[in-house]
Amino acid sequence: MEKQTITIYDVAREAKVSMATVSRVVNGNANVKKETKDKVEEVIARLGYRPNAVARGLASRRTTTIGVIIPDVTDHYFAELARGIDDVAAMYHYQIILANSDESNAKELRVLDSLLGKQVDGIIFMGNLINEPIRDAFAKADVPIVLAGSVDAEQAQASVTIDYTLATQEATTRLIKSGHQEVALIMGPSEHSINRDYKLVGYKQALEIAGIPFDENLVITADYDYQSGYQLAHIVNDSMATAAVVVDDEMAAGLLNGLVDMGISLPEDFEIITSNNSRLTVMTRPQLSSITQPIYDLGAVAMRMLTKLMNHEKLDVKNIILPHGYAERDTTK
Amino acid sequence: MEKQTITIYDVAREAKVSMATVSRVVNGNANVKKETKDKVEEVIARLGYRPNAVARGLASRRTTTIGVIIPDVTDHYFAELARGIDDVAAMYHYQIILANSDESNAKELRVLDSLLGKQVDGIIFMGNLINEPIRDAFAKADVPIVLAGSVDAEQAQASVTIDYTLATQEATTRLIKSGHQEVALIMGPSEHSINRDYKLVGYKQALEIAGIPFDENLVITADYDYQSGYQLAHIVNDSMATAAVVVDDEMAAGLLNGLVDMGISLPEDFEIITSNNSRLTVMTRPQLSSITQPIYDLGAVAMRMLTKLMNHEKLDVKNIILPHGYAERDTTK
Repeated sequence: MEKQTITIYDVAREAKVSMATVSRVVNGNANVKKETKDKVEEVIARLGYRPNAVARGLASRRTTTIGVIIPDVTDHYFAELARGIDDVAAMYHYQIILANSDESNAKELRVLDSLLGKQVDGIIFMGNLINEPIRDAFAKADVPIVLAGSVDAEQAQASVTIDYTLATQEATTRLIKSGHQEVALIMGPSEHSINRDYKLVGYKQALEIAGIPFDENLVITADYDYQSGYQLAHIVNDSMATAAVVVDDEMAAGLLNGLVDMGISLPEDFEIITSNNSRLTVMTRPQLSSITQPIYDLGAVAMRMLTKLMNHEKLDVKNIILPHGYAERDTTK
Repeated sequence: MEKQTITIYDVAREAKVSMATVSRVVNGNANVKKETKDKVEEVIARLGYRPNAVARGLASRRTTTIGVIIPDVTDHYFAELARGIDDVAAMYHYQIILANSDESNAKELRVLDSLLGKQVDGIIFMGNLINEPIRDAFAKADVPIVLAGSVDAEQAQASVTIDYTLATQEATTRLIKSGHQEVALIMGPSEHSINRDYKLVGYKQALEIAGIPFDENLVITADYDYQSGYQLAHIVNDSMATAAVVVDDEMAAGLLNGLVDMGISLPEDFEIITSNNSRLTVMTRPQLSSITQPIYDLGAVAMRMLTKLMNHEKLDVKNIILPHGYAERDTTK
């Protein structure tokens, strides 16, 4: 039996560090403590991990190029996810080309076409709205596609995500247990499956568990950006809500600043939990409490799955769910 | 004499709106007031502006694809600039592929090679460090290259920028006039020409004009990111500085939060002017006063120059300087 290839995941687990740290050590990034670097290098040597093994397996082809479709390059969450994918790709000596889809379906189809025309070897897709035209285009593409941080309710494509339903349920429950009867869910458009089929479901589960009746006035929909969040402050303040779970960090930062600018104190008068734990969460004052996501791991696992698919290997699990967590900061008591 | 092509710039000037607004109207973006939309459409009809004229001029070729090299996709300034370029490109029906260079020279060379291998028709380059290997690679590239928001002291390539020297001089003068004798310049690595040959020069000019001796302890160098700025707060507080011009918004946000977290009030005890006016400047509390840059115009003009070069037209001006401005917010008195 052929020896199984050691992956970055194995090294990270064995060295008890994140994949991002392994990636930094392999890429020679100076930003790693010596102690950690030594530990990682020891594990790499012991397990016989060869970062280029996968790339070498494809050596008969030209340079491997991955297309990455990102809804908005200025969105913190997706930019950080793309950055994670890029770092992992660099380790495998893959080339990455990014395409901005503008969260518009027409443009998503166009950039998908364009990437296929540029003969990429695989595609990592991030986006909130996966509908029939996109599914058709995926089905017709002659290279493998993996969804990262994005869901298709039909699960036709390989994907790596967190459990959005459970994460939203837990965040809502946290606010209910903190004493709130009226918790708002601030989410993106309900035609986005990630909102309708996952986050809203988790929110309702939390209410159900606590015996609180669902009030549709507390589900507020807006665009995933700062200005939309800021403009919601009055609406949220006029509602009965005294706390909110927000699905996007830019929206959450906008809502937070809008409330603060109206003279409302957080966490005393209002509590917020946001969802993506991007850098923005530590830039606001007060800092935003957040669901945490393993951004690097989402990127690394997506790359790993794509590599397997490009190599015509079978995936053991097609839809991988990674563990999430919670970071307590200053918008919760 | 052939009638000169009407550009987006002409439409914007005539309709007294930004190029971004013209771009939105042409792309059918709903986010424009009806009154503005009507005005822009009237000007487009009157001037006979045809957004696709340039693309049609290249109709004998396949789809035009532009490679855009960006130092860090998670950096607000460059991400917003890339987004502007992408919007303008969409209007001309160009395809954009983005490549993250990681602010590393080795990777810049690699992504440049990769883009050329993908047969892009032109490249827009953003980056802070342009040295001999990069210049050589530019010289050898068989497609035109335009620098956007980036300078090469040798000015071998076409570029579109603002006058960084003058903008930094004015910001420094503004703080001096506000009563500060000890103004710090917080900048990126001095091997980056944009710092050494432009921003530092402007800073020194302002001191010279005010008759204040240059003190090298007030020039503080760090990386262009939030954590670096945050960690500078103690250093800045220990220096004699009572105000600072900061060259990057993420650094400025970090410095601001670091000072606030130390109990220092802005603008009462310390004033900050930052340089890029990215979205981040309105997300901090207090909001950051900033030099303003015409981000969309930088992108649009870079695209326009690149289009001319791809079409084998001559550029009237090789290094275009666009006007900058100043946005007074809450970190200055």
